[in-house]
Amino acid sequence: MKKLEERIVRDGKVISQDILKVDSFLNHQIDPVLMKEIGEEFYRLFKDEGITKILTIEASGIAIASFTAMAFHVPFVFAKKAKSLNIDGDVLTSTVKSFTYGKEYTITVAKKFIRPDDRILIVDDFLANGMALNGLTDIVHQAGAVTAGIGICIEKGFQKGGEEIRRKGYHLESLAIIDKMDETGITFRD
Amino acid sequence: MKKLEERIVRDGKVISQDILKVDSFLNHQIDPVLMKEIGEEFYRLFKDEGITKILTIEASGIAIASFTAMAFHVPFVFAKKAKSLNIDGDVLTSTVKSFTYGKEYTITVAKKFIRPDDRILIVDDFLANGMALNGLTDIVHQAGAVTAGIGICIEKGFQKGGEEIRRKGYHLESLAIIDKMDETGITFRD
Repeated sequence: MKKLEERIVRDGKVISQDILKVDSFLNHQIDPVLMKEIGEEFYRLFKDEGITKILTIEASGIAIASFTAMAFHVPFVFAKKAKSLNIDGDVLTSTVKSFTYGKEYTITVAKKFIRPDDRILIVDDFLANGMALNGLTDIVHQAGAVTAGIGICIEKGFQKGGEEIRRKGYHLESLAIIDKMDETGITFRD
Repeated sequence: MKKLEERIVRDGKVISQDILKVDSFLNHQIDPVLMKEIGEEFYRLFKDEGITKILTIEASGIAIASFTAMAFHVPFVFAKKAKSLNIDGDVLTSTVKSFTYGKEYTITVAKKFIRPDDRILIVDDFLANGMALNGLTDIVHQAGAVTAGIGICIEKGFQKGGEEIRRKGYHLESLAIIDKMDETGITFRD
């Protein structure tokens, strides 16, 4: 998605060969106009997959899921990283290892919100090692539903997550794939 | 907002006189069509306040802020509950006591995203004791900016937060105010 790549070049900050900050428009301060276009792009890419629900993970996935859900006119659900006292009844859980925070955490979705006949589109801001996605696809699998698509804003193509997820046969679409980045610039995959 | 009250009656679950679950449409599974209408209602209520930015708190505020920001065509920022390793530089922080989780936590916003000339609209899903709002208005104050409005989806009118915030002179608008709830039903303020 040309507009996202241009925005990454203009407003992103390459902190190291691994870390890209996009906190001015994607995951701390958020530009709703760009987000709406991202949601519509995911609709274009996945509109033939029979999507019934969007799934993401708190917190940075929620804005993306909001506009994607709007484009599809379906509800979305976000997996919670803390077990809330306010979630009652049956839950689906999975364990995710976070490299950013250097620890493992449990993600939780109320069972009633993913049904066996759902065709789920998972969306998130970043794909690097794919740990969060493994947790989300695991939850969809536990629910007996189908992960009909995975939509990512920025894939770190130099890390192994994207390759592994494609090898498993998922329909993965990343709006911008970075093959290399350093202080001299960012190289996107064609 | 009639449509929100009707949805609360239809799909909300009164767990006790204090706890209302709206996780099927507001804060776990989310209905984007209702959210868009909520965003447009906040625009109607605050359009004369010269709003330059929306502020909320992760996680359940993010979907509301997304559609409110879209209605205003301004960016939004969400305060983080964990100090991310990826936030660099100067941050504004405040301490919030959570009754839901029974502990205190720190909320953080990068200083660069709230400037002294900003007129901030704070939005959130619930207002009960007003602890999260106190933290958010504190952060706006630290930034030297103005809290020009506070938009809440559901106010628990039987708790003290709303009254205290109105007494401080803030322009607070709650789309649904619950004066009383129990197993026999929910009473909304006119």
